[in-house]
Amino acid sequence: MNTAAIISSLINQHFRSVGGLRQVFLVACGGSLVDMYPANYFLNSESATLHSYMMTANEFVHAAPKTLGSQSLTIVCSHGGNTPESVAAAEFAKRRGSVTVTLTHNENAQLIAFSDSNLLYAWGDDSQVINNPMALILSLCVEALQQTEGFDGYADFLAGMAQIDGIIARARRQVQGRSAAFAEKYARESLFYILSSGASYGHAYGFAICSLMEMQWLNAAPLHSGEYFHGPFEVTDSNTPWILMMNEGRTRPLDERVRDFLRQYGDKVEIVDARELGLGVLPPSVVEYFNPVLFYSVMCEYRSALASVRQHPLETRRYMGQVAY
Amino acid sequence: MNTAAIISSLINQHFRSVGGLRQVFLVACGGSLVDMYPANYFLNSESATLHSYMMTANEFVHAAPKTLGSQSLTIVCSHGGNTPESVAAAEFAKRRGSVTVTLTHNENAQLIAFSDSNLLYAWGDDSQVINNPMALILSLCVEALQQTEGFDGYADFLAGMAQIDGIIARARRQVQGRSAAFAEKYARESLFYILSSGASYGHAYGFAICSLMEMQWLNAAPLHSGEYFHGPFEVTDSNTPWILMMNEGRTRPLDERVRDFLRQYGDKVEIVDARELGLGVLPPSVVEYFNPVLFYSVMCEYRSALASVRQHPLETRRYMGQVAY
Repeated sequence: MNTAAIISSLINQHFRSVGGLRQVFLVACGGSLVDMYPANYFLNSESATLHSYMMTANEFVHAAPKTLGSQSLTIVCSHGGNTPESVAAAEFAKRRGSVTVTLTHNENAQLIAFSDSNLLYAWGDDSQVINNPMALILSLCVEALQQTEGFDGYADFLAGMAQIDGIIARARRQVQGRSAAFAEKYARESLFYILSSGASYGHAYGFAICSLMEMQWLNAAPLHSGEYFHGPFEVTDSNTPWILMMNEGRTRPLDERVRDFLRQYGDKVEIVDARELGLGVLPPSVVEYFNPVLFYSVMCEYRSALASVRQHPLETRRYMGQVAY
Repeated sequence: MNTAAIISSLINQHFRSVGGLRQVFLVACGGSLVDMYPANYFLNSESATLHSYMMTANEFVHAAPKTLGSQSLTIVCSHGGNTPESVAAAEFAKRRGSVTVTLTHNENAQLIAFSDSNLLYAWGDDSQVINNPMALILSLCVEALQQTEGFDGYADFLAGMAQIDGIIARARRQVQGRSAAFAEKYARESLFYILSSGASYGHAYGFAICSLMEMQWLNAAPLHSGEYFHGPFEVTDSNTPWILMMNEGRTRPLDERVRDFLRQYGDKVEIVDARELGLGVLPPSVVEYFNPVLFYSVMCEYRSALASVRQHPLETRRYMGQVAY
């Protein structure tokens, strides 16, 4: 999808006349919020002038930052497009004068009513990951940076987008055997810790709250690799399983340090390593931003295998959409 | 301690000559990072010109944002003052041209060697909370905002600082009985979920990773009240304990919604309510920023009671400071 054209049109038709784009608000709930973490990490890392905020939709509506206004781009994502908090967030952003870009998989979504530009994204195993929300939101933010202050890694990012689907297709095949073995080994566990760093920390959170808590009713907690040694590691023992997603790029030393400790003091340790899965062929200037895109797809294999062995379908819910809340 | 004088001196002696203060980096590890969350939330909420970043120290050193430089104020906190990652972060910030303010309880801390201004803070049950790091870091950021673009709630914030110690002293007495009952009731649990929102989400994280994981070797996970309904709530049942810290201020509706759901579908629910504990006497414009200051002190009563019943002293470690890592 043409994220460059969307951003350029918003800049020309709106931001140019109000003094320029200043803030990017990344707003969603649960799994869709997870998809925004890499974009937020990217803007925080690379931008000198754009202020990026990432907020769960209901907090955004109740406690929006003072800056939200006509120089703001608010990106709201909801898979079904009717999540009440996300629809309210898009409506609220528009009321405050912000431009909104929405993303959804539902062409009849209520969300679209509060959208200056909507991306109807692809989904499912046969879709390209570059057309899934995580890559699309990252791409929107790369374009926002490139078309305002410029981004030195822009050409490298485009090269990465051209390569990532091929890398992921190979990685998914590569983990078939090990994800099945993982599922057999851990089928009777009730609690998992999920570790990562950098752009992928959001997916550690996402795998915990979506794949395990929501879809498997399993207890789970995300941890940042850099924080592990400052408290959390005290629970490390031979009983609890740890899943460590090791990044390619700048924060890899943080993940490697966790790996070394867990190998010594833990017994149940599953390592998913972006380097071993081939991500290292991407340009060094941007490779770190693609880690979570890879991890999302690869970890889908792990959760599918686990769901299958546990005979707990990924779609089963007891509260979501079943009771009032 | 005079945070106003520290900020004014840094502005006059440094920032004025380089074009002004633009970024605030809040950098630490574990419990000290937790102390920075309210300040980061405050600047994100209230500031139009200052860009606030909160990062665990090792990620800051390996993947620092491009903006880190002469227009940046980096605040680094370490209780013992010799945490290698935090010392490295302060050194790195200075090398990049940033001004550093450090906070520690150790007058011989290595951290002080890389400090433009150091606050030797008070600690322990007989210290005032306004002289503890969470309130001090918040106060530094309030001053940074007031002395650059101005902050409408400044007088209210000072009024809050004058009242908060009295409120907390009463609240601690108020929870004596209930924290003892909590400890008796939950002494044999192995996993806790900790929920809050707004400025207090950081302390949900902190209670999980420091008070429970580090100090009690108990499994724990923080959750944002706004995110609970978008995945995590699927694990709610009658077996797992939930601790909900309910805020006074803008995000209270998010916490109330969780309370109502947990009362219906959970059995083991402990509610710690800032309103019931008297925080509502603070000015509405700033009350929300004081929630985590209150919760920190009040939750110390809960963790002490739990440690006592479990006969697991809060100081016991198996890895931290005991083995190489």
